[in-house]
Amino acid sequence: MPASAISPTRAEDYPEWYQQVVRAADLAEQSPVRGCMVIKPHGYAIWEQMQGILDRMFKATGHVNAYFPLFIPLSYLEQEAKHVEGFAKECAVVTHHRLELGPNGKLIPTGKLEEPLVVRPTSETIIGAMYAKWVQSWRDLPLLVNQWANVVRWEMRPRLFLRTAEFLWQEGHTAHATSAEAVEETLRMLDVYATFAERDLAMPVIKGPKPAGERFPGAVDTYSIEAMMQDGKALQAGTSHFLGQNFARAQNIKFSNTAGVEEFCWTTSWGVSTRLVGAVIMTHSDDDGLVLPPRIAPVHVVLLPIHRNDAEREAVLAACRTLEAELSAERFADEPVRVRLDARDIRGGDKVWQHVKQGVPLRVEIGPRDLAAGVVSLSRRDRGPKEREAVPLAEFARRCPALLEEMQAGLFARARAFREAHSVRLDSQAAVLDHFGAGDGGAAGRITGFAHVHVADAPAVTAALDPLKVTVRCIPMDGPDEPGTCVITGQPVPRRSVLARAY
Amino acid sequence: MPASAISPTRAEDYPEWYQQVVRAADLAEQSPVRGCMVIKPHGYAIWEQMQGILDRMFKATGHVNAYFPLFIPLSYLEQEAKHVEGFAKECAVVTHHRLELGPNGKLIPTGKLEEPLVVRPTSETIIGAMYAKWVQSWRDLPLLVNQWANVVRWEMRPRLFLRTAEFLWQEGHTAHATSAEAVEETLRMLDVYATFAERDLAMPVIKGPKPAGERFPGAVDTYSIEAMMQDGKALQAGTSHFLGQNFARAQNIKFSNTAGVEEFCWTTSWGVSTRLVGAVIMTHSDDDGLVLPPRIAPVHVVLLPIHRNDAEREAVLAACRTLEAELSAERFADEPVRVRLDARDIRGGDKVWQHVKQGVPLRVEIGPRDLAAGVVSLSRRDRGPKEREAVPLAEFARRCPALLEEMQAGLFARARAFREAHSVRLDSQAAVLDHFGAGDGGAAGRITGFAHVHVADAPAVTAALDPLKVTVRCIPMDGPDEPGTCVITGQPVPRRSVLARAY
Repeated sequence: MPASAISPTRAEDYPEWYQQVVRAADLAEQSPVRGCMVIKPHGYAIWEQMQGILDRMFKATGHVNAYFPLFIPLSYLEQEAKHVEGFAKECAVVTHHRLELGPNGKLIPTGKLEEPLVVRPTSETIIGAMYAKWVQSWRDLPLLVNQWANVVRWEMRPRLFLRTAEFLWQEGHTAHATSAEAVEETLRMLDVYATFAERDLAMPVIKGPKPAGERFPGAVDTYSIEAMMQDGKALQAGTSHFLGQNFARAQNIKFSNTAGVEEFCWTTSWGVSTRLVGAVIMTHSDDDGLVLPPRIAPVHVVLLPIHRNDAEREAVLAACRTLEAELSAERFADEPVRVRLDARDIRGGDKVWQHVKQGVPLRVEIGPRDLAAGVVSLSRRDRGPKEREAVPLAEFARRCPALLEEMQAGLFARARAFREAHSVRLDSQAAVLDHFGAGDGGAAGRITGFAHVHVADAPAVTAALDPLKVTVRCIPMDGPDEPGTCVITGQPVPRRSVLARAY
Repeated sequence: MPASAISPTRAEDYPEWYQQVVRAADLAEQSPVRGCMVIKPHGYAIWEQMQGILDRMFKATGHVNAYFPLFIPLSYLEQEAKHVEGFAKECAVVTHHRLELGPNGKLIPTGKLEEPLVVRPTSETIIGAMYAKWVQSWRDLPLLVNQWANVVRWEMRPRLFLRTAEFLWQEGHTAHATSAEAVEETLRMLDVYATFAERDLAMPVIKGPKPAGERFPGAVDTYSIEAMMQDGKALQAGTSHFLGQNFARAQNIKFSNTAGVEEFCWTTSWGVSTRLVGAVIMTHSDDDGLVLPPRIAPVHVVLLPIHRNDAEREAVLAACRTLEAELSAERFADEPVRVRLDARDIRGGDKVWQHVKQGVPLRVEIGPRDLAAGVVSLSRRDRGPKEREAVPLAEFARRCPALLEEMQAGLFARARAFREAHSVRLDSQAAVLDHFGAGDGGAAGRITGFAHVHVADAPAVTAALDPLKVTVRCIPMDGPDEPGTCVITGQPVPRRSVLARAY
């Protein structure tokens, strides 16, 4: 084996390291359709874990799921002016509904549509059209609906999970009788995302409103959670939008209030996507491949029997099956421990490295000598790949939930420490230029990370940061106010913003 | 209240009754996009129950989930000749990937694609293209993958759930080293569907191969499960296809066998869709609306508090909450009993009828007099809407799982009895003509149901049945052979086929 299973390493070439981790863990690959990825079974199993947890959180906060059409009439996108500008550029457009076989066996599009249809880049407009029919009275509110769906935004420079033409996501769409309720909902779902990111993905995030230039097209306020990847770049991991009455006005979503007077609704939307799989990879993985927080790992423990002949095989497999049953009876994060017995007849070393590269939290090797000594040989994915620890066989299953809990907490602490080590407070434009000026945030570059800076929400700030390829990620909400003056414009601002290069 | 909650009744106008049941239960509605439906929260919750059960069955039979692109290059559809013919007619075609805002605020498609993309009507070709890369050796086989996805087949005459341009489904795609293994897989998944239909949907089905003319385009054999709706029409509720080496040849899915010789794989595909929601509606519902088999009911028991003043309200709600907790601790079909306390402040009668029309299996009313007597007032959805039974409050939760079990079995028995009562054995062409000649199978028509008839798999049979709007649904596999001669062609055939009008 080379010094590490993944080549290049993070330090050598971070973007390429990412691609190689995805490949080595067999998570996804490019498809023959430009910009569209295939999510392979291991990658999809991680997404299923995420979906399961989020879906329970959405339902616990009163939301129900529904499903709306994939296609949106062109005229719907035209209704909300800012929305058009934001989404009109990068859509897949359906213009025909039939194919005919030409003379040379080629298919020819026919049946031209009167009005072209757009493959949804997001569903505010089509869902709003339905809400306009569904909502009549204040008794119909709030309307709290979520959709799990695929969406398409044409991408010229796709990167697996991070930026693909088609991706999977959930989009919540709610309608309320008052502005206050809609703002409350917007922040509630931001909190759901932050809790999920930190508790389940072990990924520390900063919550806050985005500056005006970074808002969702048509939103009054966009809030995001921002995470730091191991190259110091920010990744927007989820967004929650307060849409005010903008979409309600454009689509005529009205209700009669308790006094019988008609008003426009106040709406929100919020979403996270398969991009989160990319975020998890870049937050935790190392130079040996994928590292998964146990709460979203499709398999918590893999059992690896070792034997040289049939007699050994039988005894070892019997012990493995007993342990498998014991482990399945244990619980971690409110669910049974997920265990896999890997009895495939392939070289032991290959098998071990496959599980290392796929990020299985705990690997347990069991051979005749272990059995004789009444132990298993435990390796943890958060330690060196060759580190092993003998654990009494009789105790292992019982100890497993605590081990997983410890790993989950350890990954979070490590990621938070990394973020803290790569965060600075800067107090002048010169300091910002100096900090971000030389770095490229990428391959072998200096890690510039997050800079907490007083900046105004103003075009002059964007213009000053643009040459540095730096953006204002959000204005952190947690913690006390810290008034200051914008390092670019000199305007007074109540608190610092987070500046970073970003995915 | 009128004599029944749904108007027209089944006897008066079955197709319109279906639409009204869907509307009254708030399951789905047409969207502004032609042919595409919106699946509303209650309809989607039923689909989620189906998905959950099926997903566990797929995983228990060794399958994993993955996700493949929504778009298929036109040239892929051209690869398998029969597949082209079957699917080329009714596809949504993406021809542009950009929109530009015209001078009058109108959006104009731009960015014409070099090769148009088809929105998947099914994914054999795009998945096959990936399998060709993934499979090299016999060690890579079998490949057992399922996908949950949306698909689009343009429809000019849509009907909610039964036939819509976009629908949700799962599609399994597997590759094997031998024909025998692929056939075994095809039949295994047919059995999974039949078990699911009968055990979970309480819907009796007949399993068997389809005649040649009804096969999936490109398949060697197509097997289906066929259910009888209450108008006597057949509904194909699931299909499983043995694709032989047809798609493997077209797409070059090859493996080197244990002797090192290259061979084409043997593939299968199988799917069920949101059409099953329509099948459940038409199998069990009555003139008061939706009737749901408990195993797929989003809510098993609804608790309806009755009170006239605040003091009563407090006592009744407290009792309801205790009962809610007790019920949630009980289990039915390996899951907690799903209970909803409906404390909305609306007229009691409206509330009751809403739950009747939405198909909640058990309704429990609790008022001050019930509390004083230590009972609850139970109504079952499989009995008359006004039938009530006093059940001791202290016993109800404990008895609930058995009640649900009894209802589930009762619905299945009723549906099976209906099918048996509307099945005939016919032994001549004249008898077939006489049986199907006058009926229209629809509004106020005679219920022609299933006819078990000896027919050959021959174009002459199709031609003879076509004027009757009757098709050979499948050749039932269960039960013994019963040789006979085709009533149309006179050819010897080993067993009877099922003939019916169909959805």
